[in-house]
Amino acid sequence: MFKAKIDSTVLKECIESLTAIVDEGMFRLTESGLKLRAVDPANVAMVSFELQRDAFDLFQFAVKESGSEADTEADTGAETEPESKKEIEIGMDFVKFLGILGIGGRDEVELELDEHAQKLFTRMGSLAYTLSLLDPSSLRKEPKVPELEFPVQVIIETEMFRRTIRAAEKVGDHIVLGVDGEVFYMETEGEMDKLRLELRKDQLILLTPGTVHSLYSLDFITAMSKGMSHVENITLNLGKDYPLRLDFEVAEGKGKVSYLLAPRIENE
Amino acid sequence: MFKAKIDSTVLKECIESLTAIVDEGMFRLTESGLKLRAVDPANVAMVSFELQRDAFDLFQFAVKESGSEADTEADTGAETEPESKKEIEIGMDFVKFLGILGIGGRDEVELELDEHAQKLFTRMGSLAYTLSLLDPSSLRKEPKVPELEFPVQVIIETEMFRRTIRAAEKVGDHIVLGVDGEVFYMETEGEMDKLRLELRKDQLILLTPGTVHSLYSLDFITAMSKGMSHVENITLNLGKDYPLRLDFEVAEGKGKVSYLLAPRIENE
Amino acid sequence: MFKAKIDSTVLKECIESLTAIVDEGMFRLTESGLKLRAVDPANVAMVSFELQRDAFDLFQFAVKESGSEADTEADTGAETEPESKKEIEIGMDFVKFLGILGIGGRDEVELELDEHAQKLFTRMGSLAYTLSLLDPSSLRKEPKVPELEFPVQVIIETEMFRRTIRAAEKVGDHIVLGVDGEVFYMETEGEMDKLRLELRKDQLILLTPGTVHSLYSLDFITAMSKGMSHVENITLNLGKDYPLRLDFEVAEGKGKVSYLLAPRIENE
Repeated sequence: MFKAKIDSTVLKECIESLTAIVDEGMFRLTESGLKLRAVDPANVAMVSFELQRDAFDLFQFAVKESGSEADTEADTGAETEPESKKEIEIGMDFVKFLGILGIGGRDEVELELDEHAQKLFTRMGSLAYTLSLLDPSSLRKEPKVPELEFPVQVIIETEMFRRTIRAAEKVGDHIVLGVDGEVFYMETEGEMDKLRLELRKDQLILLTPGTVHSLYSLDFITAMSKGMSHVENITLNLGKDYPLRLDFEVAEGKGKVSYLLAPRIENE
Repeated sequence: MFKAKIDSTVLKECIESLTAIVDEGMFRLTESGLKLRAVDPANVAMVSFELQRDAFDLFQFAVKESGSEADTEADTGAETEPESKKEIEIGMDFVKFLGILGIGGRDEVELELDEHAQKLFTRMGSLAYTLSLLDPSSLRKEPKVPELEFPVQVIIETEMFRRTIRAAEKVGDHIVLGVDGEVFYMETEGEMDKLRLELRKDQLILLTPGTVHSLYSLDFITAMSKGMSHVENITLNLGKDYPLRLDFEVAEGKGKVSYLLAPRIENE
Repeated sequence: MFKAKIDSTVLKECIESLTAIVDEGMFRLTESGLKLRAVDPANVAMVSFELQRDAFDLFQFAVKESGSEADTEADTGAETEPESKKEIEIGMDFVKFLGILGIGGRDEVELELDEHAQKLFTRMGSLAYTLSLLDPSSLRKEPKVPELEFPVQVIIETEMFRRTIRAAEKVGDHIVLGVDGEVFYMETEGEMDKLRLELRKDQLILLTPGTVHSLYSLDFITAMSKGMSHVENITLNLGKDYPLRLDFEVAEGKGKVSYLLAPRIENE
């Protein structure tokens, strides 16, 4: 049993952060909230998503098999509860779901799961949408998150990052993200031209000084930058010829999104 | 002889209500105002249109043959005059005319008919447009309006209706409009998903309780919903497996538009 | 050596006035400022462009060969200096450069020329762009400006001119610009319809009375009208079956743009 209410803007922001990487995927729903891990079809980018139950205005959850119901309102108990292994898998077409949420305007969204029929009832004001769920076994397998150590961390205004990405798209196909001493830079070289953003420590929210840089496919960075349109700051975790982990919060801090992107070998 | 002045917003709203169903058609112009009846090319939807002479800021009309001129300003005499049989037929490409009106901005529009040359002079501020009229005999024949009795009437905010139609387009090809007791509903089923709007009597401007529903082609309802963008409320006249008549007012009540749409047989 | 700072809005406005006619071209840079003359690929329209050094916030210029540097800030000396023959040629892809300027938002733009590498460093806030310059010998030859005498001059609000052009595009392929006594007119005839703008002397900023008119290809006038989006007024220099010279100012009067367009023979 799952029944919930949530602000439509919050839910849209969450689903949008997923559609940046995948069209469909599987939520793991527990009494603590929602989780998801998924890779893009090319196996180059990964998204890890987590939304706490207290991001919901109402959150009622119970696993059928167990017989016991954990039925509480989100507002009352937001303490860190031991995470239950009891869970429900919800396979979903995120692109379609995002389209539906767009219909409903700014109304609060009510969700109700029909596990037997594998449908999700979505009510937005006077509009009700019955979404057929996807069979989890038909979806790409959940990826393992590799263990990574990032020597350098940069926190940057999302708008500055997105603007640079939009600019880079006009120049080339790849982008270098790097830190050189106390300067963070993004650099794209095209056939003839070159674009470079440089931000000093005092122009960033945070910078771990260091000397690292890696090259990434711009297509994936562009996709990621579309998943964070409502976010003020993002955290870039960087290394030398190393994956990028890009973290941000959603749902006013009650949700977390991480994108992981494999590096390209330079002069590839 | 026909010479008139009219607010450009009012005239645009009128022509837009026609282009929702037909690209071209024939106005019947009398000393009482303008009338039109036309069917769409597929013969499934019909529009009836009427604009009173007092919707114009100036309205000068005379039929050549009679010799006598009925030349009055709209403001002075808006009493219900006996409708004259003397009329002028004006065949028009509405899509083109709407484009022209879009050019002129918010200026008042002056119209002057050159019956001999079959041209309509359209002046908007400093811009003058000479529109060639269409030969009425080249247009589809004016339809007869069938006699219909509608057991149920619903008055709904246009914006709610249009939003639901936009949502339904994402789900399926047909839509059910129905009343069940004191609830009005619109429902679309796709291959997998279902969308339903439900409005109780207190969420509507008016509802005749009843039990009726009919299925319609969404394409036509979509087209109609584009003809009413400036209208606050629309009236839906419904029956059981029956045509839909959708009425609204234009020109601040001095004009009327009715769309008539044949039903589809369910499970077709 | 060339180093400069300029308001990004001013620079965009300048480059936009060029891209209306040509995609690429060659600036002649002297200690007085920038100049350019170029014809469109079809050899029908020409643009003459001039930007004074005092349109820049900083303007440092020196010709390598001479050894002597003329290094002054624009603010200090805006007197009419004798124009130096010493100049640097800068071949540029204007379309690409305009795209780059669009990236930088409202930041001031810093320019620095690397003559040896034939690159233009463009810095906008934290973003730096290195633009490869074009070899002037690969560009179309600079045109000669023909000697012309225009009997009639009209100064018109840009917005009125542009709106009429947009309207004319819906009607036909050519447009007549003319003056008849104290009335300026623009007229387009389509296969069936006709559009005419008429403005009396008191509706214009200036009008030299006369009797002239010429026919022009609308495509070129449309292109020109896109080069003046930030300009309040334009000057039309007209004759009888004669070229059109369309002048306007950019950079708050510190720059000048002239478009020259060959007439079409009527009934062509």
